[in-house]
Amino acid sequence: MNVSVIKIGGNIIDNEQECAAFLKQFAELKGAKILIHGGGKIASEMGTRLGIQPNMVNGRRITDADTLEVVTMVYGGLVNKNLVASLQALGCNSLGLTGADGNLITAIKRPVGEIDYGFAGDVTGVNTEVLEALLNANFIPVVAPLTHNQQGQLLNTNADTIATELAKALASKGYEVSLRYCFDKPGVMLDLSDPNSLVTEMNTSLYEQLKKQGVIAAGMIPKLHNAFDATNAGVTNVYMGLAENLLQEKPYGTAVLS
Amino acid sequence: MNVSVIKIGGNIIDNEQECAAFLKQFAELKGAKILIHGGGKIASEMGTRLGIQPNMVNGRRITDADTLEVVTMVYGGLVNKNLVASLQALGCNSLGLTGADGNLITAIKRPVGEIDYGFAGDVTGVNTEVLEALLNANFIPVVAPLTHNQQGQLLNTNADTIATELAKALASKGYEVSLRYCFDKPGVMLDLSDPNSLVTEMNTSLYEQLKKQGVIAAGMIPKLHNAFDATNAGVTNVYMGLAENLLQEKPYGTAVLS
Repeated sequence: MNVSVIKIGGNIIDNEQECAAFLKQFAELKGAKILIHGGGKIASEMGTRLGIQPNMVNGRRITDADTLEVVTMVYGGLVNKNLVASLQALGCNSLGLTGADGNLITAIKRPVGEIDYGFAGDVTGVNTEVLEALLNANFIPVVAPLTHNQQGQLLNTNADTIATELAKALASKGYEVSLRYCFDKPGVMLDLSDPNSLVTEMNTSLYEQLKKQGVIAAGMIPKLHNAFDATNAGVTNVYMGLAENLLQEKPYGTAVLS
Repeated sequence: MNVSVIKIGGNIIDNEQECAAFLKQFAELKGAKILIHGGGKIASEMGTRLGIQPNMVNGRRITDADTLEVVTMVYGGLVNKNLVASLQALGCNSLGLTGADGNLITAIKRPVGEIDYGFAGDVTGVNTEVLEALLNANFIPVVAPLTHNQQGQLLNTNADTIATELAKALASKGYEVSLRYCFDKPGVMLDLSDPNSLVTEMNTSLYEQLKKQGVIAAGMIPKLHNAFDATNAGVTNVYMGLAENLLQEKPYGTAVLS
């Protein structure tokens, strides 16, 4: 069975028009599919309105108890349920989930090292039976980036990581998985100012070279780690790029090879 | 097939200890079951923190656009996902839903009459197929009081009404449904100061009599309307009372007869 695992980030969530266009394209995408969404600026904005300042280290949110409350509300409630309602309006039988629902994604609170990430969850398992039961019943799971530790604690987990882990878990059960990370660029670019500099195929040796040259830096590094992780675990194809290009029948962006 | 439909309100949601005790009892309840929860004070508190004043008329919340955002976050996110995570810790394979998820509960925006209730949803349908698919897959649905209009609009619907509609829909499909509305009293009381004045059996003639006498008033009227509605629609048994009494094998409270 083929499954498309599509991850969208803040650039789509934060922009009403782009989000509407994306959802239309997603609804039209054939076959079994799963949507994983980030939270965008809404979580930070809501936190600020509640007097909670966002605390970021290396592009990752530090999840203190107040922040966990905000992301549970925003990711699990506001964003997730509005995406589900919008998809339902497009005839797409979506069902919103966090990792706690159906025990879908278990995690442990990230051990405190140099940085204390607070209630950040490192994934320990994916319950593929639940995912299969939902896919077989023709539901389209819409997954918020929240996990749980099976002891009653919700945890905040990066949405790229959730997409990667779901894709890997389905691949391990014999599914042909197409994983597509949508973000705000056409893919990995050699020169951000040159739209023709798209890297259409990325492999580990090119990655190491480009990282050494400083072409790949900051947020792209964990993104590509996730992508290679998926490829190495048997995910059939992995793409990064703009949603409108990646949701075409023939995705156009950066294909991440092993 | 037997299904218990259990509704809890603010008195349980707002009290950490009571909530923990309830969830333990709910997890131990045998057979298929569905939990419907209200939002409690958290929605009003969160609204106040965000500078939105709760606007209540006749005990019902007026749902303007800002309030809808708050209840979507609090009911659909914060409360729902924490209940799910807590139940998972008790080995209860819960799955959180709103009416938008799987197109479970459709509604229309309440027509504007004397009062404009804003984004309040009057239920138009329950998708029993979805509910059956989830129950058959041994999930325990945990339902937040939100519905949708199938055109992308989430709506705020009273949790008692949601419980009633889900119970009626399952009864119409041949399920033996036990509906239990948990609230902060042992049931309908002839005298609130006398714990021995519990009405153990309520029927429509007693209801009319007690309403005339002013014994039944305010919030109890819509609660009892919901209960009679369920009984008349073939729900096998309907109880109102304290959670700890209603979740016993032999529920103790007010049994609502037709």
